[in-house]
Amino acid sequence: MMKPELEKIDSYPFYVEPFHVDFTGRMFLGILGNHLLNAAGNHSQRRGWGIGALNETKHTWVLSRLSIELTDMPRQYEHGTVETWVESVIRLFTNRNFAILRADGTPYGYARSIWAMIDIETRRPCDLLSLYDGDILNYVVDEGEKPCPIAPHGRFRFRDAKLVRTIDTHYSDVDINGHINSIKYIEHILNLFPIESFRDQRLQRFEIAYKTESRLGDRLAFYMQVVDDNETDVEVRREADGEVVCQAKVRFAIYNNR
Amino acid sequence: MMKPELEKIDSYPFYVEPFHVDFTGRMFLGILGNHLLNAAGNHSQRRGWGIGALNETKHTWVLSRLSIELTDMPRQYEHGTVETWVESVIRLFTNRNFAILRADGTPYGYARSIWAMIDIETRRPCDLLSLYDGDILNYVVDEGEKPCPIAPHGRFRFRDAKLVRTIDTHYSDVDINGHINSIKYIEHILNLFPIESFRDQRLQRFEIAYKTESRLGDRLAFYMQVVDDNETDVEVRREADGEVVCQAKVRFAIYNNR
Repeated sequence: MMKPELEKIDSYPFYVEPFHVDFTGRMFLGILGNHLLNAAGNHSQRRGWGIGALNETKHTWVLSRLSIELTDMPRQYEHGTVETWVESVIRLFTNRNFAILRADGTPYGYARSIWAMIDIETRRPCDLLSLYDGDILNYVVDEGEKPCPIAPHGRFRFRDAKLVRTIDTHYSDVDINGHINSIKYIEHILNLFPIESFRDQRLQRFEIAYKTESRLGDRLAFYMQVVDDNETDVEVRREADGEVVCQAKVRFAIYNNR
Repeated sequence: MMKPELEKIDSYPFYVEPFHVDFTGRMFLGILGNHLLNAAGNHSQRRGWGIGALNETKHTWVLSRLSIELTDMPRQYEHGTVETWVESVIRLFTNRNFAILRADGTPYGYARSIWAMIDIETRRPCDLLSLYDGDILNYVVDEGEKPCPIAPHGRFRFRDAKLVRTIDTHYSDVDINGHINSIKYIEHILNLFPIESFRDQRLQRFEIAYKTESRLGDRLAFYMQVVDDNETDVEVRREADGEVVCQAKVRFAIYNNR
């Protein structure tokens, strides 16, 4: 049953801490990603289908896609808000959107994500429409009511990607499930780019598709493929077996608001 | 002049987010370190000698030592508080202490730190006793009034340290000043230890002495020296010129509270 006191859209406040900004004074994208995931976690938690509730029923959320598009990046000492809502639910996946807002309500940008729910033991996806009697459907906010004015998730086509770096994974990369954490992939991927990319340009859009879990001790191989002057695709593979762990699209733009 | 509405001791609340815990569900030490530095920043900011105020007068705080000792580490979803206060001030340095408290007020542990203030242009230390007419002295809380029941900062004696890892530094390592950020050193140092150290033991005490700034693109060489079964010293040197960047002591203990 829908909890009548809860709105469909949640707000998650954030503050841009000194250690959360890059050398230009702008928030690291990984930190922003962390705020988005916290906002998503709170939203589902408060409605009864968060990780805590799900542990009792042996289910958990798994992030499959995340696409973030920004006209500006929050700067040191700024206060902002992440709004999040469920755009749609199909049997095995839900689309969750985000607005990343300044203190005055104007947008820094938006994000889209796709999540599945899996059974912790079998690791197989669950039917979202039947879980908790399909309660999640009570919270769907359709596109007309709350738009998310950025392009849908793109497609990846790797043809001539070149190996650019191989890294060992360490203690700080791993989350409570023993997997390399979703945010650390974002950090490692952005670390492939030369500093000039961040100095003379701004990150306009970042997409990531999570394919397979990797674990502590896995060596990860990073392959890059230049799409055009502004866009680069990155594929991360487990070195041992070549399995694709995640894929990302990184698009920079010349600064329009230095 | 002392601002009469302000207590000498500040409280900084924290919450243990899912992406801030390690594979055991305990907060990463680097995240705790970040909370300590935020607490310190807020404390001095509110009293008029924070970074913002100092920029006008072209001064900034530089962290020289940080020693953290814990009987327990905050766990996922816990709420806690960092208390911070100035223990003493001598001409060029101030000692700032921290208590890391559970929601019920009992301690997870304590920390000590030493800071200098430097002139941003000359990079030379400033006389804290004369800055803002020595206002900082109004906020000193002596040991009798507010104890910090952990050992003082130790001494480092590197004799037979062995090179164990060399790393490149990347975009995500660098702060707004273009330096490798203080917290990232903590992460890289803990990443030297095998996973068993964190699985079968707990981090009991961590000390770090910051010696020289390193910058994006510097390669950092990590040297380790085993002190005894529980304690290891680490020295981080700039590979290019061998300059010591920082030194750390890492002490583990067998879990007493799994």
